[in-house]
Amino acid sequence: MSTQPLLEQLIEALQCQPGIGPKSAQRIAYHLLERDRERGLKLSRVMAESLQRIGQCGSCRTFTEAELCAICASTQRDATTLCVVENPMDVASIETASGYRGKYFVLMGHLSPIDGITPEVLGLHLLEQRLQAGTVQELIVATGTTMEGEATAHYLRDIAGRAGVRASRIAYGVPMGGELEFVDGSTLSHAIASRREY
Amino acid sequence: MSTQPLLEQLIEALQCQPGIGPKSAQRIAYHLLERDRERGLKLSRVMAESLQRIGQCGSCRTFTEAELCAICASTQRDATTLCVVENPMDVASIETASGYRGKYFVLMGHLSPIDGITPEVLGLHLLEQRLQAGTVQELIVATGTTMEGEATAHYLRDIAGRAGVRASRIAYGVPMGGELEFVDGSTLSHAIASRREY
Repeated sequence: MSTQPLLEQLIEALQCQPGIGPKSAQRIAYHLLERDRERGLKLSRVMAESLQRIGQCGSCRTFTEAELCAICASTQRDATTLCVVENPMDVASIETASGYRGKYFVLMGHLSPIDGITPEVLGLHLLEQRLQAGTVQELIVATGTTMEGEATAHYLRDIAGRAGVRASRIAYGVPMGGELEFVDGSTLSHAIASRREY
Repeated sequence: MSTQPLLEQLIEALQCQPGIGPKSAQRIAYHLLERDRERGLKLSRVMAESLQRIGQCGSCRTFTEAELCAICASTQRDATTLCVVENPMDVASIETASGYRGKYFVLMGHLSPIDGITPEVLGLHLLEQRLQAGTVQELIVATGTTMEGEATAHYLRDIAGRAGVRASRIAYGVPMGGELEFVDGSTLSHAIASRREY
């Protein structure tokens, strides 16, 4: 056990959270001590339990403490459509925003061989087996628009092609409600190149 | 045990921290799960220990897990000067910023009879006993400039007067490096009223 005062240890430890610097950590520590010990203790319990027990879904690789996540376990979801995203947070965003009723596959990253992130690390061999199995009829590619995201998208299209599964990509373009003058050049040129009959 | 997925429980629990809303909580949860389980577990341990073990210093009332805080226990500090502040955070600010070598008394709030915060709640009877005891020669009043802070300051001056102890108040005025045009009116009029020989 360190001999540093507990309060200093707490202020330091709080800074493992992204976006929390020394000032915010100090404010949080005093707030919990002065006004919210109950909820702080609950947070420490839930945090310990989450970090110890949450693993990955056996089917889609997203975070869950169960064998299968709620979406993979559900019989209400359309198993013929599979949406591939980079992170568990992307699943949450799509679930909140859209009426998508298919299933997901979460890469937990994007291809980046230089950092050792090979297709195996992203579980793409598992994805290929799943596509070969025949249930999935459409693979929706929803990786990011970074260079690595694009490379991953190409790789996914190839896997789908080999398995005879239709691949699609979510639309990229000018955001809804966006004014053209505030849209960056590369988005705009992509939006013009991807124009559709109207 | 709730049947809500652990990840959702974690995102909800993280929001007991001031300044952390649903979006930041989500980001923190995924960050800890993906990249920093070790430090997250350490945070949960330190948080539980802090919230269970940190109490108040028997002498100055600031937060500490010991009988006396480090400043009260120190023989290097000048016991004849006592600085009264509203919150433990104020002690940290003064310690970081200034060369103050005296001791502190922490009110843990300010007088507000309408909210039930009476002199007893702030430990002012203990402070009065301490001043009567005779060691303290100067009481530095460093409460805030809110209406309640001012009322508390008056009360402190009266206590010091009754004990025959000299009372002083920290200077309020234009901040160092501040440009006059950006200083609010009440600070400026206070600064002019409190002008000193130059």
